[in-house]
Amino acid sequence: MNELNIFFEPKSIAIIGASETLKFGFPTTQYLLNSKFKTYPVHLYKETILGHKAYKNVKDIPEPVELAIILVKNDNVLGAVKDCIEKKVKGIIIETAGFAETNIDKYVKLQKQIENLAKKSGVRIIGPNCVGITNFYNKFTSTEVDFNEPILVGNISIIAQSGVLGNVFIDWGMSQKIGFSKSITLGNKVDVDEVDLLEYLQEDKNTKVITMYLEGVKRGKEFINVLKKMTKPIIVVKNGKSDISARAIQSHTGSIAGNNEIYDAIFRQFNCIFRVNDFYEMFNIAKIFSVQPLPNGKNVAIITGSGSLGILACDYINHEGLNLAKLEKNTIDQIKEYAPNWVSLKNPVDLGPSQFITLEPALRALYADPNVDSILFIFTVPKNPLKNFGYSFKKPFGIIKNLTEKLNKPCVISCFGSRWVFDFIINTALKYNIPVVPSIKDSIKAFKMMYEFNQYLKSL
Amino acid sequence: MNELNIFFEPKSIAIIGASETLKFGFPTTQYLLNSKFKTYPVHLYKETILGHKAYKNVKDIPEPVELAIILVKNDNVLGAVKDCIEKKVKGIIIETAGFAETNIDKYVKLQKQIENLAKKSGVRIIGPNCVGITNFYNKFTSTEVDFNEPILVGNISIIAQSGVLGNVFIDWGMSQKIGFSKSITLGNKVDVDEVDLLEYLQEDKNTKVITMYLEGVKRGKEFINVLKKMTKPIIVVKNGKSDISARAIQSHTGSIAGNNEIYDAIFRQFNCIFRVNDFYEMFNIAKIFSVQPLPNGKNVAIITGSGSLGILACDYINHEGLNLAKLEKNTIDQIKEYAPNWVSLKNPVDLGPSQFITLEPALRALYADPNVDSILFIFTVPKNPLKNFGYSFKKPFGIIKNLTEKLNKPCVISCFGSRWVFDFIINTALKYNIPVVPSIKDSIKAFKMMYEFNQYLKSL
Repeated sequence: MNELNIFFEPKSIAIIGASETLKFGFPTTQYLLNSKFKTYPVHLYKETILGHKAYKNVKDIPEPVELAIILVKNDNVLGAVKDCIEKKVKGIIIETAGFAETNIDKYVKLQKQIENLAKKSGVRIIGPNCVGITNFYNKFTSTEVDFNEPILVGNISIIAQSGVLGNVFIDWGMSQKIGFSKSITLGNKVDVDEVDLLEYLQEDKNTKVITMYLEGVKRGKEFINVLKKMTKPIIVVKNGKSDISARAIQSHTGSIAGNNEIYDAIFRQFNCIFRVNDFYEMFNIAKIFSVQPLPNGKNVAIITGSGSLGILACDYINHEGLNLAKLEKNTIDQIKEYAPNWVSLKNPVDLGPSQFITLEPALRALYADPNVDSILFIFTVPKNPLKNFGYSFKKPFGIIKNLTEKLNKPCVISCFGSRWVFDFIINTALKYNIPVVPSIKDSIKAFKMMYEFNQYLKSL
Repeated sequence: MNELNIFFEPKSIAIIGASETLKFGFPTTQYLLNSKFKTYPVHLYKETILGHKAYKNVKDIPEPVELAIILVKNDNVLGAVKDCIEKKVKGIIIETAGFAETNIDKYVKLQKQIENLAKKSGVRIIGPNCVGITNFYNKFTSTEVDFNEPILVGNISIIAQSGVLGNVFIDWGMSQKIGFSKSITLGNKVDVDEVDLLEYLQEDKNTKVITMYLEGVKRGKEFINVLKKMTKPIIVVKNGKSDISARAIQSHTGSIAGNNEIYDAIFRQFNCIFRVNDFYEMFNIAKIFSVQPLPNGKNVAIITGSGSLGILACDYINHEGLNLAKLEKNTIDQIKEYAPNWVSLKNPVDLGPSQFITLEPALRALYADPNVDSILFIFTVPKNPLKNFGYSFKKPFGIIKNLTEKLNKPCVISCFGSRWVFDFIINTALKYNIPVVPSIKDSIKAFKMMYEFNQYLKSL
């Protein structure tokens, strides 16, 4: 068992600086005290916290504590860490901010002292300046994720440096029907870092795709070594492309951004890690990776009701170095049987307003075409006709699911339209494991990365 | 009065091929027959359409008809156009598809005949292969826009080539609180084209910003001439960057994509027209243009609760050739009074979890700083604390509105988060004329384009 497991499945928890008023740390306190996880609140002077007996010090807790969550203010963190070590706590999450990222001498030193304590004692520390962990499988969290709301459990894990974002990722992901597995925010990384977590997630059976927000890597050599061992795709946003952002990183988590070109070179060398530009891209691409097979070639077929968006997709295919699949005559003839005389019968297949009649035979024909490696279905229908026609999509989505599994050809739906249409399609497609994303560009980028990742796996 | 006005404020309308069954054209028929617009249905054999007396031919209508909407199938369109000309109709919208875009000789010729009829008779024709017009001010529409739903009226007009997209733009725009003025889909452009419409919209008092989806320009010289006269910004998606997309354009609306480099050169020469990559970008940027003043310089201040996103913004600022504003000592001192010791007090101003305390003084200080030309407020807060704290944003948004108007410094809120948070912020900000967009990149691009547009206006 990986020793980081205590962070994801702690047997007992102390919350040091537990809060019963509406401030940072309150939602975590409230959630854990009312959860199945054995949790002890620690507070300097309160007798109880939310009705639970509070302890003045972690050392006063009569049972063993496996994991401590520290929320006290920065000046008091070092003392709390020392207490935890005496108590033989195995893991500590320090959520408190105000350390190396302030660039204030006193707090930079304070962080260094905590780092040294971790090294000497062997206790594992996540943070400071983070919100810690969420495990979507057992519903353990040290963050503000609300498990009372419907949460989709899946196979995408997140490594984020920043605390705020860790929570917001989950919030946003839910609106996009993204299923998460584990989320970790690392903060200033006095001990546990992305190298540890990549190793952990590589072994984790509930993680298929890793997303990562990175400001800087501290252990460059180890980072490269772990990349060599990865057989799961990592989609990464690495900030700090410019001097001004590199300086901003220093005052955010105290990290050194490092040379942008070196990172790019590393990412190019290992085709298990893919750099993207923002978080929308990161999660859209991860979502596609997480539920679709890897394509065996670069030939993309496009099927759409909007000629304009089909054309836009061509520009992206060209930009990514993929090919617009050349359809066989047989494929076109099969679609022709069902289509009105004015439908454009080449790739992109523009079904126009006839898409509800032509979609099913067109999908069958495209899957069967040996020149097609992946299929992008650009769905753009105004709300009114879709509502009026009452078309259920069960049949075409069933075709997509079956043929994708049978033939190993990934399919993505890119949907541009009203919120009603988007929600209707994403909720329907979810049952068939078909990823729906708003962006055509991201869909095509995903095909490119999935093709490269497939080649990478074959080369291992 | 511009003669195109009959398309936007028709005094009487004939729907040729009116439909009372659930097919293309039905929503338009249903809407117009039950609207304040005097509308006559025309149908080959039906006596009535949705309870209204139907005419066999447009010529049978006893009153003058100003605008005809043609929905009959492609083989019957030429005859309908001839009838309209005999009836002395002033404008025709041909929605039917199946002409030059099919690349079938017969239909290419048919389109040419319609084009010649327009030239000879002087009747103005929009289409074929489009959905025509929506005027959000008087609620006239030949499309499937649903005026029974809440629709935001504003000052952004849309010129689109493609029919489907015209409708979807409106659908999507509503979810983003985008206020539209007029929308026009042009299709194959036998007569009315983007040159006519740019002239029209330049004069239109309800249009401040023009968005345009373009596959190709037929009248290059006239296009350049009209650009020379424009004093309104045009945000354009021009497809056809690659050979494969140029070929796809030919079979979509029969247009010639033209040389991509020539378009880029034109767009670079006239800083009233700005090329963007997709429709999300187009509308996000148009929204910012539509409600915010133009910045006088390139110095951007960033204020955020998420250090990570602040850093990401730095990379975009650098990429767009803008500057991260250097804050005056006085500005920083003013914020310092309110901020905890660990807050990062430079640009980007990272307020962290203290943003609800620090936001108002920080905004005041940033507006007052003479080195700041525009302000990007990156809003990223998890749903739970926002819901729990019950913070109304009335005070900071009031500050933004007042100081933006007083000092001519644009402010944009870029919001990444749950749908609840996004909706809360976008609805609240709407009352203060503050644009909210999901994308940081688009916000910064808008600052760049607005600065360039300001320089352009000054140079005229």
